[in-house]
Amino acid sequence: MPGALDIAGNRLESDDMALIIQKFGGTSVADVDRIKQAAFRTQAEVNAGHQVVVVVSAMAGVTNALVEYTDQMGALADAREYDVVVSSGEQSNAGLMALALQNLGIQARSWLGWQIPIWTDNVHGKARISGINTENIVSRLEVGEVAVVPGFQGMGTNNRLTTLGRGGSDLTAVALAGALRADRCDIYTDVDGIYTSDPRIVTRARKMDRITYEEMLEMASLGAKVLQTRSVELAMNQNVRLQVRSSFVEDLGTFVVSEEEIMEQQIVSGISHSRDEAKVTLLQVSDRPGVAAGIFGPLAESSVNVDMIVQNVSEDGKTTDLTFTVGQSELETAVTVLREKQSDIGFGDIVADANLVKVSVVGVGMRSHAGVAQTMFTALAEKGINIKVITTSEIKVSVLIDAEYTELALRALHTAYGLDEDND
Amino acid sequence: MPGALDIAGNRLESDDMALIIQKFGGTSVADVDRIKQAAFRTQAEVNAGHQVVVVVSAMAGVTNALVEYTDQMGALADAREYDVVVSSGEQSNAGLMALALQNLGIQARSWLGWQIPIWTDNVHGKARISGINTENIVSRLEVGEVAVVPGFQGMGTNNRLTTLGRGGSDLTAVALAGALRADRCDIYTDVDGIYTSDPRIVTRARKMDRITYEEMLEMASLGAKVLQTRSVELAMNQNVRLQVRSSFVEDLGTFVVSEEEIMEQQIVSGISHSRDEAKVTLLQVSDRPGVAAGIFGPLAESSVNVDMIVQNVSEDGKTTDLTFTVGQSELETAVTVLREKQSDIGFGDIVADANLVKVSVVGVGMRSHAGVAQTMFTALAEKGINIKVITTSEIKVSVLIDAEYTELALRALHTAYGLDEDND
Repeated sequence: MPGALDIAGNRLESDDMALIIQKFGGTSVADVDRIKQAAFRTQAEVNAGHQVVVVVSAMAGVTNALVEYTDQMGALADAREYDVVVSSGEQSNAGLMALALQNLGIQARSWLGWQIPIWTDNVHGKARISGINTENIVSRLEVGEVAVVPGFQGMGTNNRLTTLGRGGSDLTAVALAGALRADRCDIYTDVDGIYTSDPRIVTRARKMDRITYEEMLEMASLGAKVLQTRSVELAMNQNVRLQVRSSFVEDLGTFVVSEEEIMEQQIVSGISHSRDEAKVTLLQVSDRPGVAAGIFGPLAESSVNVDMIVQNVSEDGKTTDLTFTVGQSELETAVTVLREKQSDIGFGDIVADANLVKVSVVGVGMRSHAGVAQTMFTALAEKGINIKVITTSEIKVSVLIDAEYTELALRALHTAYGLDEDND
Repeated sequence: MPGALDIAGNRLESDDMALIIQKFGGTSVADVDRIKQAAFRTQAEVNAGHQVVVVVSAMAGVTNALVEYTDQMGALADAREYDVVVSSGEQSNAGLMALALQNLGIQARSWLGWQIPIWTDNVHGKARISGINTENIVSRLEVGEVAVVPGFQGMGTNNRLTTLGRGGSDLTAVALAGALRADRCDIYTDVDGIYTSDPRIVTRARKMDRITYEEMLEMASLGAKVLQTRSVELAMNQNVRLQVRSSFVEDLGTFVVSEEEIMEQQIVSGISHSRDEAKVTLLQVSDRPGVAAGIFGPLAESSVNVDMIVQNVSEDGKTTDLTFTVGQSELETAVTVLREKQSDIGFGDIVADANLVKVSVVGVGMRSHAGVAQTMFTALAEKGINIKVITTSEIKVSVLIDAEYTELALRALHTAYGLDEDND
């Protein structure tokens, strides 16, 4: 099958030299010893005959300290100067990684964002990569030199340093993988992969070998600490095969790949959850065109981030109930904003409900399988768990339940979908 | 008098806008609060209508920590990567200083070494500045923007980051002052100026208002911790008027300027000393051509740094005694090397003498005044201090004495030359 992966994540048809991007997160390069340990991972790929680009984060804690310094400077926070400050942690680690590799007898040099360059727009603090000049790096990779690139940084069209925002080093790695048409982009971190559910709650959760980009995006709660949405989206767009793996154990991690590359598709891949949800129900909302805009416009203006939205059909043709969820910390703002607009919008009352959790069943296989939602509802009903809101997408079913049932629900669903370790 | 300085160090004929370089050392920008304090110094100059370029060091201790990291990476120490690592401390401080200034309502932006650029050769770790493109900075200075430049860093012709070696931030400041034809280059540090002698020993030592470049170079021991030889030499060559001053008190510091700019020239400006000297005397050295080369060649090959050298005329026309001084830590090496070469060189014996101190009387005024050395010898004799070696240069007389007489000698000489505070 063309494009399929062998166990090491390489395309089956290519046993030869591969181009591999290795990205080491903050805990993986937290001090001199860990940088040296990370360098052994690079050495292994070099010894296997591969070309390697290493992307490094700052030492764990350094970026936060630098951000804190900029905060303490005062209320005025010129993002261009912020970028000059916070990009320095990745810079020094790039030099240190190059030294570590050289001391293993590996040819290596650092390439700062402006030296490559990695071009971005001028939205400092959260710039978007617009293009990468790959010629210089490619010519050095071809003679066997490892390129070490500081993550998180680029150069704006104004010739100033930019940074890419939270998770920016992953973005650097994925963007380089796309631009260089790398065979693989390994994200080395402090977890050993993506699990079928939170292993701290579901003890029988399994590390997945494979997950699709789409599933990864829907399972934010399972992977958000590991891999941010922006990086997964970029990987999907650029068709970059990601591997989330641990810096501290030798095992393979979880591959995040396109659907076509996964041969045996599970119907449900994982059970994710999101805590600190709150529900707002507007009762007796006038059932007329433009009412939704009247509700969500003011919320957006107040920076309230709305997640699930459910509106039932009107019973009497005149009014309906409308429910949506927000983060618990935004509940008070949401209710205040809507009460102010009560007469404009036209609704009877507001009912707010905090301490909820959203549990989601995710899997690209459910596209072609009926009954996935029914399995969920049955499993929850058997445990006496009341479902407050249901939403569905093409590859996900989410329900809102009382937070106290979180662990019970996750374990029940994990078993119901046959994901428990024993069933593997 | 054209070129003379007023009390603030500005040329007397220019009361108008001046271009001022301010360099803040590591202790002056050691943390967020100190950076904010330093920014007030810049604000004062801006409010006075001046154009200002601020050069910042890394926070005290940061560069040493980064150097330590590079050391720990292994024996192979690619200086290009060393530069990438160690230049990051100045970079982040430049951004922080720009933010501090903006928060005082001052227009400011950081200019990294490669953005200006400050061009250097490719001798990484101790690069020499070859040129500075000033156009961009000048155009922004002219519209009232303060330029903040990280010290210590430049860009090689290989388009890679370089660093300038120890004292590099001073060099950056002086080089910028030269290239921009600045009216003044203020070196803000943790001492408030250059003293006529070490104030920890000579309690009546005075802070000098003025000192010439030449005197500053000869008084290494008085100023070495403040201003390195390279920076003073560069200032002399570029005719940059330096002021060494404290970040922590408001007073003016000591101006380091050319001889013409000092109206009333002291005969002796200061008394410096250098500890940990050792003396080596070779007895009965064959008095023949080439014998000095035979002695100092092997010492240079063993990296022994020789300071004073004295050779008396031969008494008998056949042999002479030759004395030189080295640092105490190099004494053993020096003696070992020479003993090995004893038969080649041809000398009778070696006499070594450790625990000595070199005391120097420095002043450009002594060029035109006789009797300066005689005052020294008399003052020391009166205190019963034995002089072991004497050397002289155009503006300096140095003697080697037993270390235990250091304090006595310094105080006696300070008084003898009329330098005591009361005599001011």
